[in-house]
Amino acid sequence: MNTPASRPPHAQTAPPPATLVPEEGWHCGHYFYRFRRDMLGDLDGVDEFLAALDPPSGERTERLQAYIISGHKADFGIMAMDTDPLKIDSIHQAILAGPLGPAIEPVWSFVSVSEVSEYVPSVELFRENQIKEGAIAGSKELEDRVSAYATRLPMMNHQRLTPEFPDWPAACFYPMNKSRVVGANWFTTPFSHRRELMAEHARSGIAFAGRVSQVITVGVGLDDWEWMVTLWARNPQYLKDIVYKMRFDEASAAYAEFGPFYTGYKASAEEILRHCRIID
Amino acid sequence: MNTPASRPPHAQTAPPPATLVPEEGWHCGHYFYRFRRDMLGDLDGVDEFLAALDPPSGERTERLQAYIISGHKADFGIMAMDTDPLKIDSIHQAILAGPLGPAIEPVWSFVSVSEVSEYVPSVELFRENQIKEGAIAGSKELEDRVSAYATRLPMMNHQRLTPEFPDWPAACFYPMNKSRVVGANWFTTPFSHRRELMAEHARSGIAFAGRVSQVITVGVGLDDWEWMVTLWARNPQYLKDIVYKMRFDEASAAYAEFGPFYTGYKASAEEILRHCRIID
Amino acid sequence: MNTPASRPPHAQTAPPPATLVPEEGWHCGHYFYRFRRDMLGDLDGVDEFLAALDPPSGERTERLQAYIISGHKADFGIMAMDTDPLKIDSIHQAILAGPLGPAIEPVWSFVSVSEVSEYVPSVELFRENQIKEGAIAGSKELEDRVSAYATRLPMMNHQRLTPEFPDWPAACFYPMNKSRVVGANWFTTPFSHRRELMAEHARSGIAFAGRVSQVITVGVGLDDWEWMVTLWARNPQYLKDIVYKMRFDEASAAYAEFGPFYTGYKASAEEILRHCRIID
Amino acid sequence: MNTPASRPPHAQTAPPPATLVPEEGWHCGHYFYRFRRDMLGDLDGVDEFLAALDPPSGERTERLQAYIISGHKADFGIMAMDTDPLKIDSIHQAILAGPLGPAIEPVWSFVSVSEVSEYVPSVELFRENQIKEGAIAGSKELEDRVSAYATRLPMMNHQRLTPEFPDWPAACFYPMNKSRVVGANWFTTPFSHRRELMAEHARSGIAFAGRVSQVITVGVGLDDWEWMVTLWARNPQYLKDIVYKMRFDEASAAYAEFGPFYTGYKASAEEILRHCRIID
Amino acid sequence: MNTPASRPPHAQTAPPPATLVPEEGWHCGHYFYRFRRDMLGDLDGVDEFLAALDPPSGERTERLQAYIISGHKADFGIMAMDTDPLKIDSIHQAILAGPLGPAIEPVWSFVSVSEVSEYVPSVELFRENQIKEGAIAGSKELEDRVSAYATRLPMMNHQRLTPEFPDWPAACFYPMNKSRVVGANWFTTPFSHRRELMAEHARSGIAFAGRVSQVITVGVGLDDWEWMVTLWARNPQYLKDIVYKMRFDEASAAYAEFGPFYTGYKASAEEILRHCRIID
Repeated sequence: MNTPASRPPHAQTAPPPATLVPEEGWHCGHYFYRFRRDMLGDLDGVDEFLAALDPPSGERTERLQAYIISGHKADFGIMAMDTDPLKIDSIHQAILAGPLGPAIEPVWSFVSVSEVSEYVPSVELFRENQIKEGAIAGSKELEDRVSAYATRLPMMNHQRLTPEFPDWPAACFYPMNKSRVVGANWFTTPFSHRRELMAEHARSGIAFAGRVSQVITVGVGLDDWEWMVTLWARNPQYLKDIVYKMRFDEASAAYAEFGPFYTGYKASAEEILRHCRIID
Repeated sequence: MNTPASRPPHAQTAPPPATLVPEEGWHCGHYFYRFRRDMLGDLDGVDEFLAALDPPSGERTERLQAYIISGHKADFGIMAMDTDPLKIDSIHQAILAGPLGPAIEPVWSFVSVSEVSEYVPSVELFRENQIKEGAIAGSKELEDRVSAYATRLPMMNHQRLTPEFPDWPAACFYPMNKSRVVGANWFTTPFSHRRELMAEHARSGIAFAGRVSQVITVGVGLDDWEWMVTLWARNPQYLKDIVYKMRFDEASAAYAEFGPFYTGYKASAEEILRHCRIID
Repeated sequence: MNTPASRPPHAQTAPPPATLVPEEGWHCGHYFYRFRRDMLGDLDGVDEFLAALDPPSGERTERLQAYIISGHKADFGIMAMDTDPLKIDSIHQAILAGPLGPAIEPVWSFVSVSEVSEYVPSVELFRENQIKEGAIAGSKELEDRVSAYATRLPMMNHQRLTPEFPDWPAACFYPMNKSRVVGANWFTTPFSHRRELMAEHARSGIAFAGRVSQVITVGVGLDDWEWMVTLWARNPQYLKDIVYKMRFDEASAAYAEFGPFYTGYKASAEEILRHCRIID
Repeated sequence: MNTPASRPPHAQTAPPPATLVPEEGWHCGHYFYRFRRDMLGDLDGVDEFLAALDPPSGERTERLQAYIISGHKADFGIMAMDTDPLKIDSIHQAILAGPLGPAIEPVWSFVSVSEVSEYVPSVELFRENQIKEGAIAGSKELEDRVSAYATRLPMMNHQRLTPEFPDWPAACFYPMNKSRVVGANWFTTPFSHRRELMAEHARSGIAFAGRVSQVITVGVGLDDWEWMVTLWARNPQYLKDIVYKMRFDEASAAYAEFGPFYTGYKASAEEILRHCRIID
Repeated sequence: MNTPASRPPHAQTAPPPATLVPEEGWHCGHYFYRFRRDMLGDLDGVDEFLAALDPPSGERTERLQAYIISGHKADFGIMAMDTDPLKIDSIHQAILAGPLGPAIEPVWSFVSVSEVSEYVPSVELFRENQIKEGAIAGSKELEDRVSAYATRLPMMNHQRLTPEFPDWPAACFYPMNKSRVVGANWFTTPFSHRRELMAEHARSGIAFAGRVSQVITVGVGLDDWEWMVTLWARNPQYLKDIVYKMRFDEASAAYAEFGPFYTGYKASAEEILRHCRIID
């Protein structure tokens, strides 16, 4: 039987505990909302709205950011991460259950978990790649680079699994799939080729370091798209620049399918209410 | 005329009885709902809501589970199975007809029936497959395995037709089709090849035994997708793990088309109301 | 000019009368509805609802059946046929114009007409086909079969154009197109091949005689899909069985595109209201 | 530079006047509506509804017809043509601004302009085509036909640009695109081949003269589809007959993409209200 | 590493400032709205509506135009450009937050930024293209043309980045993508070929100079489509003419995917209210 070596058949091991906490990484929730002006009327609920986006310590998620969203699709959005998916969804419920709730329409969301992608090169693979790109096997320069990578890798993976959110003014959020159409089927492409394409894609991203920061979370088996991309930028123009550049990477050009894009501007709950003229 | 041997022309047999009870297996209903905060107002109907998800004995379906659903698409969902499709739909009607009904929006559902897939290997085929995979024809070891399979098969089919629902904390639900596009048409693929692909797919699933449990029900002729997949997991991460792994199986990679995914956390009716802050 | 022989240019004949009555066959309407629980309130209108589904003699359509629909998409549906399309649509208007109307949301419908498909074999073609399948030209056995077919054909066509609706408990309704994608274009396929595929498809259906009964009506030029399929069954499982089997016919596997499926259970207006808990 | 000869660069000519009136032909609007029974309540506004569909002389469009629409998608529709697009849209606004407006939901519309298609043969091309089809160059018979065409053409083009609407009982309306998919790209097909296909398509239509009448208007650059087809028929069956026949023309079979179909029955404003039971 | 020469790795430079102001060009917002007649009732808010479309100086965007939109999709729309995306979105919020807001439904919008496309020829490339098209290298005529282009280019780019809006009566707005389907993948097409196709496309546009004016803004990474096209015309017929002509350019015919089209007529806020009969 084709059971992978790393996955011993269940009969041979105790079943894992029943829990909502992932073995590694965090749950992630993106939620987007629109104010329904036809329901606002004399509703008062500013305090409860502010509180919903600033939960008391026991209900506070590990990460939480809020954004003004431009365009008609949404007025504001939040992104939260935690070990407990119900704690994340509770923020959503608190937003809707407050006095302003009847005037708040949830318009889109995405449920995902963080992970270290299978395409992240191991230290060994990193060395091989360096040699392929011209580094001299056994040279000190190569070993220094490898050693630096070996030091960086756990930190990078930590950031992938339990990311810090940068305090930058602009962000965009969009889900994506890898295509499975005839003639461009990512999932029937050999792993080695997929890894190369993802490495090219990573290099496109690295060129934007300091200007754009990203987190990729996985929705496979959890929501309607396979991945969720979160990009933060020092300038909203960089969101356009990086996504435009990446679209020519073969991984995107040939295989990516994109869902809705939400562009946001980091804001406090109060700034959201003020921008939307719920408060003066 | 090409009438299959197993289907004698009607003129030669009495017509089957007119009934809603399937010849084998159960009807299955998945229903997902969202609370409409604009309609909740002072509605009281907690008792009726609890009762709807705990029907009196005469209206009780053979199986019934409820879930908190994360994300904006739904707040909660139910899955029920029974010989009587109207008994299943009655739970839906009871949810909507209660005092909370005006504030409950049904957002998605799926109507299906359980079945033993035509790809489940017979005992004979199981033996052949074992030999193909290297077992020695006539050996005791092979016959022991075949005998074990012969014992297991009726139990497995019983579980397929009238499944027990595991008491695990996480679940996901999604419908799927097999594609009929030019170049990847499942339905013009020879049965023997489809059976091989489904066997590969089954092995992917078996690797998750003890962590993930599944039921596949059929919506062909009944609802908008051909199949409905229900996965229960000890940890929501395993939902991501198994669906990600399976996506590379040729049966999925080349032929599967997926509908909306709903991720749920097993909950009582009261826990649903509490999570959604309908009650404190 | 390429005017078909059977269609003389208009200058040579008097124009046909202006009328809504088809030259042959009937208009057909399928309508599906959902109760809006947020609008039901204290609405009373049971009598008017019952009357709408049991029109007085002058407004009565030639055929009318009602169904409980399972799932969230609809609560109930009707199917009606008549020479007058406005008489059919009047049932729809009566349902909506009654006191319960504000709480009844029409969710889907299909407008079509009955016809004798161009693929129904003539008596001559039937004879040829029998000979191709091994019957001996000129034999008494062949001529008996041909003669039986010649007797049956007018009755079958009568049923196609002005069908009796069976009194069976389950039904499903779905629209379909024949695809025109590159590589699987039904409409550029030669007639002779299309006729063969439809004959194969018909044989699949005949195998379910006594268990499933069907009417195909045409929406080309009238509604968003080309055909509407109505299947009645003695057991809802047969709906799954027949549609699953037919999906492997080349006419379906390669060329069919399906719209939404509605599964219904034959019911009186009163049973609909009772199932949906509008009345006790 | 590749500026077509007929389009002199702007520097060489005075700019055309700023106006909403097309250089040739009319604007065209199709609008479809549904009565919202939940909003009708005690609304009275019959007179204003009748007036909206019978505008005073200064606001009257060159053409205006109204239809009962069958099925759930719409209850009624209008089609109007004029030199002034705002005069057309004003009918829409008048329908919605009347006392019944809150209970009238606009469900679909199409904005287009009339034109003489580039595929309409010139007199010269007509002669060439006749010769290709066997007519003898220089013969009196040919020249008579050509002469008749030369007489007919301005009238036909006048009807294309500023059509009379026939007083027939049935009509259908649907938008369409020509496909640009790989392998069936209308817009990369040479003009000469497109013209042949359109000629074949025209012949299909001519066979229905006296039974079906059509106007094709253009939405390219104005609305979501490239063309809008309006078909009037003496019998709704002919709508099915002609669209079914035309679907096998290569222009349709291989290249056409269709949007929603609305089937209507010519009616006065009062007949619409009566059919929908807004008035008795 | 493949970092483009123009993009030095971040470690070597100070990070750019955190700001919403693009490095070059402006943010752009298109917003479309429909009046909800069911919510208008006795709402008064004309002054606030007029003020929202005529913001006080501190909130005034660099550009702002309003349009009556024909058809059911929208009643009116606005297009605004500014360095500050929140100032643009504030107009949207002001429209919705006014007393008429409950009766105004935002139906579509597009978020984009202006840019100088990478396909705009440099002066050097312009010279090369002229020579390719037959100009004599080193000739005075060529150098005059090149010199004129060198003078024009900064002005044209200024217009691309910070466009003046013409005072013409008609406009249309639509988003588009370049396709990435197998066999017509713009993003895997070599740059040189893409540049040729865009040059051909530009020539189609230039033929309409004086009749049609356009601005292309970029939504990549910001909204659901890659580009937003704004066309202004002296006559709405020209919108049809130019888009129809351009559809045969290979860049469009083979690679363009179009979203919804909105056709508008330039109007003041008061004209919008009058056309929609909110005021007399």
